Amino acid sequence: MDFIVEVDKLRGIYRASRIMHEPERRENDAEHSWHIALMAMILSEYANEPDIDLLTVIKMLLIHDIVEIDAGDTFVYDEQAKLTQAEREERAAARLFGLLPEDQRTELYRLWKEFEEKQTPEARFAAAIDRLQPLLANVNTEGASWKEHGVTNDRVLAVNGRIEQGSEALWQYARRLIDHAVEHGYLAEPDR
Amino acid sequence: MDFIVEVDKLRGIYRASRIMHEPERRENDAEHSWHIALMAMILSEYANEPDIDLLTVIKMLLIHDIVEIDAGDTFVYDEQAKLTQAEREERAAARLFGLLPEDQRTELYRLWKEFEEKQTPEARFAAAIDRLQPLLANVNTEGASWKEHGVTNDRVLAVNGRIEQGSEALWQYARRLIDHAVEHGYLAEPDR
Repeated sequence: MDFIVEVDKLRGIYRASRIMHEPERRENDAEHSWHIALMAMILSEYANEPDIDLLTVIKMLLIHDIVEIDAGDTFVYDEQAKLTQAEREERAAARLFGLLPEDQRTELYRLWKEFEEKQTPEARFAAAIDRLQPLLANVNTEGASWKEHGVTNDRVLAVNGRIEQGSEALWQYARRLIDHAVEHGYLAEPDR
Repeated sequence: MDFIVEVDKLRGIYRASRIMHEPERRENDAEHSWHIALMAMILSEYANEPDIDLLTVIKMLLIHDIVEIDAGDTFVYDEQAKLTQAEREERAAARLFGLLPEDQRTELYRLWKEFEEKQTPEARFAAAIDRLQPLLANVNTEGASWKEHGVTNDRVLAVNGRIEQGSEALWQYARRLIDHAVEHGYLAEPDR
């Protein structure tokens, strides 16, 4: 119960992404985690490996951002913050999962590590969904958070290319979204 | 994808419950759905039936509030609104799940109905968690939403008694929370 009360703070961790139907508001990690868990449930047939364990995927997505309660959200296009991200998040995982009984502490730490390391089909599919959702939100808000942070299409292609490792079908879809965003000026071309 | 974009509106459906660490803010259905899905994952060992299917429980919790996008949230202590709730939600289910391909439309409609009817061990445990979470939030905010709506302890006992059907262990815990709330004046005694 201490863990359940403590992780409720995820509702107060805000991300760079805007909300599709409320673009003046940034999304928090709790809302984001709900949306991607639901997306995994709806889109699991598009995973590269046909027999992924959906329960493991959903568990990973429900817990993967909990470390941000202590470590804060690291914007995926912020190269400076990404330098210290791993160490901040490892400390956070020790404290937060440490609130659980030992068997669950071990299970959640392993799930979080599995997600971070992206070596299993489940982790690669979970990571693909975690990337696809902000892309969808950006395209549905005329690129609100891309424009705010001056993100260019070469960066978006580089960061989201990881979607392909979890789902080639969703990567094809994501590329069409990115093309659409460039055509409509939601996403800038890089300076040459 | 139409469904995934449309259900994102769940972030804009607000409930009577306050947020534990931000009591000035009411929770939205998306945050609530994340928290109860995570709670089910952590607390599943306390379900009355030992071998419940956790994936089914989590799927139900991720989708059970989607109908509120059209039907609105019905406060569990609002007897007037509860009279029309079933009909409003049935219409909403038809439209919202109707955005999905047929196999998924059928699956999600069945999951939602299973949750509503509370005849299976999975639905009873899911419903117990859905009740326990606002109780926990109220006790951790000195009864903020109970006080706001003048809710008394006999009503809380009646409405939350359903927890017992999903988990006797969590019902024992819930009763201790309610006793604590009465002792500290978070919850009023009924007028005689």
